[in-house]
Amino acid sequence: MKQVLASNDALAKEQLALLDRHDVLGINLMSGPGAGKTSLIERTVEALGKRLRIYVIEGDIQGSLDAERVAAKGAPVTQLNTQGACHLDAMMLAAALPGIDFAHLDLLIIENVGNLVCPAEFALPAHYNVTVLSTPEGSDKPVKYPLMFSKSDVIVLNKLDLLDFVSFDVPGFKASLRRLKPDVPIIELSARTGAGLDAWLGWLENKVKERKRG
Amino acid sequence: MKQVLASNDALAKEQLALLDRHDVLGINLMSGPGAGKTSLIERTVEALGKRLRIYVIEGDIQGSLDAERVAAKGAPVTQLNTQGACHLDAMMLAAALPGIDFAHLDLLIIENVGNLVCPAEFALPAHYNVTVLSTPEGSDKPVKYPLMFSKSDVIVLNKLDLLDFVSFDVPGFKASLRRLKPDVPIIELSARTGAGLDAWLGWLENKVKERKRG
Repeated sequence: MKQVLASNDALAKEQLALLDRHDVLGINLMSGPGAGKTSLIERTVEALGKRLRIYVIEGDIQGSLDAERVAAKGAPVTQLNTQGACHLDAMMLAAALPGIDFAHLDLLIIENVGNLVCPAEFALPAHYNVTVLSTPEGSDKPVKYPLMFSKSDVIVLNKLDLLDFVSFDVPGFKASLRRLKPDVPIIELSARTGAGLDAWLGWLENKVKERKRG
Repeated sequence: MKQVLASNDALAKEQLALLDRHDVLGINLMSGPGAGKTSLIERTVEALGKRLRIYVIEGDIQGSLDAERVAAKGAPVTQLNTQGACHLDAMMLAAALPGIDFAHLDLLIIENVGNLVCPAEFALPAHYNVTVLSTPEGSDKPVKYPLMFSKSDVIVLNKLDLLDFVSFDVPGFKASLRRLKPDVPIIELSARTGAGLDAWLGWLENKVKERKRG
């Protein structure tokens, strides 16, 4: 297992160098099932698709539902099927990257398989790991899935519109995140209503610009 | 991997024989993170704890939050920590079973790790696999996680109280389940409000009785 992870890390690093040569920002978007990763990508493409050249890679065990949703928003997209595996890895990405024209791209968003466990262990060609948690999932998740949250550079708390209808302890959630990763940015939003989305879009656009400035 | 699964299957079968010798019903409760497995167990213990002798095994990557919640309802409980693994397996169960007095038990509920992928592959000492999906997770989950749903004997659709606030296509969900498993019972409920809970409790109690009758 250690060997598998080491060889995955090495391949992901090579792939990331390809993104770097073209000043492309890579994002690895992770969450449990149904937390709203695809909705967040849809909103992102709607809002930034005219200003930024965005490519999306969709990871799912099977099917192409998510790729169809993203394509409908006008972004080029590749669907990867893991055929049972609970995460994407760099080897799977190797099948998709040669088809992408990095010279004419600003942002690569990789949507991982919906799973709060396995994806955290496998590096992908991404500068930032972003984990989405949704309020109905409960505020105890950082305590129960610490690896995922401690490997994340940004946490998006989604489905803020449901906060009044679920038991989610926002201060407790933030406190448990801070224990894992003291300075991690936490962006609270609702992909459904659009509330709080500006903070996410601002963070993302800022990181794309930083990369262009080198 | 095939060998690991085969040896897990064999061990789970031996463990199930132990339950059978004492006419104890075993349930393997699975779902993604935060779908409401623990809440359903809390409600079950509240409602049936006086009539049935229930033991709960809690599977989590780390921590004992869920075991504390169940213990507060008055059921004996063992917390198993998988130390990073994304599912329970029969070998982990082997650590917990010797501590259980099966001669004075009716029902063993095993709460698996919150994950819609890996737990489906590892048999446990259970007569029925029950998968919980919650409405905020989205109705596309059977299409995206077919193994979990096709290995389930009962599907619980939880968080029915949130149905008005989320995009969940109930007929579409049922149709996609029927394609995987034509006759699977689907129990719709809200562990939060208690709506629909009777159908779940009735199913469970009925299965316990069937086992006693042998």
